[in-house]
Amino acid sequence: GSALPPNEQLGASEKVPRIISAAAMSYGQRTLLPTTAPFATRLLSLMEEKRTNVALAADVLSCAEALALAEELGPEICMFKIHADALGGFDESFHLRLAEIAKRHRFLLFEDRKFADIGSVARRQYEGGIFRISHWADVVTVHAVAGPSALLSLQEACSSTDNGAFIVSEMSCQGSLAVGNYTQAAVEMAKVCRDFVAGFICTSRVTTDPSWVLVTPGVKLQEGGDGQGQQYLTPEEVIGRRGTDVIVVGRGIIDADDRLATAQAYRHAAWQAYEGRVAQI
Amino acid sequence: GSALPPNEQLGASEKVPRIISAAAMSYGQRTLLPTTAPFATRLLSLMEEKRTNVALAADVLSCAEALALAEELGPEICMFKIHADALGGFDESFHLRLAEIAKRHRFLLFEDRKFADIGSVARRQYEGGIFRISHWADVVTVHAVAGPSALLSLQEACSSTDNGAFIVSEMSCQGSLAVGNYTQAAVEMAKVCRDFVAGFICTSRVTTDPSWVLVTPGVKLQEGGDGQGQQYLTPEEVIGRRGTDVIVVGRGIIDADDRLATAQAYRHAAWQAYEGRVAQI
Repeated sequence: GSALPPNEQLGASEKVPRIISAAAMSYGQRTLLPTTAPFATRLLSLMEEKRTNVALAADVLSCAEALALAEELGPEICMFKIHADALGGFDESFHLRLAEIAKRHRFLLFEDRKFADIGSVARRQYEGGIFRISHWADVVTVHAVAGPSALLSLQEACSSTDNGAFIVSEMSCQGSLAVGNYTQAAVEMAKVCRDFVAGFICTSRVTTDPSWVLVTPGVKLQEGGDGQGQQYLTPEEVIGRRGTDVIVVGRGIIDADDRLATAQAYRHAAWQAYEGRVAQI
Repeated sequence: GSALPPNEQLGASEKVPRIISAAAMSYGQRTLLPTTAPFATRLLSLMEEKRTNVALAADVLSCAEALALAEELGPEICMFKIHADALGGFDESFHLRLAEIAKRHRFLLFEDRKFADIGSVARRQYEGGIFRISHWADVVTVHAVAGPSALLSLQEACSSTDNGAFIVSEMSCQGSLAVGNYTQAAVEMAKVCRDFVAGFICTSRVTTDPSWVLVTPGVKLQEGGDGQGQQYLTPEEVIGRRGTDVIVVGRGIIDADDRLATAQAYRHAAWQAYEGRVAQI
């Protein structure tokens, strides 16, 4: 595949200079690039040290359930992804307790807000209201639809230069308009805001630049759909063949009888796929 | 302009059949079309009876300020637009009090959530969490980026068949990707969900079908920008020349010394522009 450098394809005797593709570099190597954003460096370092490229989509209905999940599965994951506005009982004590668990089990807090409004509004949604997302989320998602000024407004409201955002450049659901020229424009947009944007939400390797972290939702050990437009891909397909970096797993783990064993199975599958692609060098 | 039917252009003696454009039909006439959605019918009827095509964007920082605005300016407007997640102090008593004011002053409640996630998530954000938007918002906004399945999931979660949604087909900020093919795809997407979709958020007449209500944000009496990418248009430009139906005014009213007099000035300007375009028949 495209992850193979030319010298592998030609045989070692050809002495072609090593061109290492983004997908074939290790997470650790990518933290050393000058263009890797501060949050991307934090995340890649943690993934390398903890040996996990699994993010959990904590798609449960209450804060109590989310906290129980974080406690049980925290040791297996690199990020814990929530939608604050879909959790019953959200209050300040929730994000304080979640931050304590995140610190103890070493994972990062990911609010999947998908900001998609003009700059002045997105900024108030990020730092204000009852969620005060900028105060506790290490990373958030932003849609490209509102253009670069919304991104710059969020960056201004960021409470720490170690925090960041992923731009949604592709979606995992049928009929999404985040395809083709839209995807390319989303990837270009990231360049106006390199310190804040850590990478992309995508279902394929949308850029060859290894500075960006590529995060893929809609992952299950078995392919299929959910009847509401969601389309699932396997960890091997996503990390091994498509060459993105982090799998986001929700219902595949949440709905399992043994959540811990299932999370470990995803972790093993996704990490093996990563080691397989890096070992191609 | 395009609002002029051919018989006006040719002179009455030509006896050409009257082709009435969408922009030239009255709000009341449009409620009689079989393809007008239930929420669009409610809104157009209210606009015709109350003689206002102004929606207020209540872009303030707290629920207390939002309630004071609703009380003061409610008599002037057709819709009161909020972002629940940008308001400090949101709780159930807020939306109950807001609904009481809305009923008394006769305006509709508009939560500008800009849903932009896969169906299963958007649905939980609409009906669940601490906001329970589907229980009190007459209308919400939805981005087209996630595709039609997200729209259908929201429709299923709708608490009343009288409620609806506007699809964001264009945005008022610089560099938005909601242009060209994206805009056209957003307009097409509405057709899969005609009972739920009441119309579009747009800055131009994106469709000639008079069933849809066209709502334009970013309106001020003076043109200009906000330094965060927002670009303002005047009521006369929006309603009179571009032919959309509702102006959304935020900072133009909120930041005024005399909010009531300013709201009345917007109401007068937008209604005059509407009467001018309908009188062209």
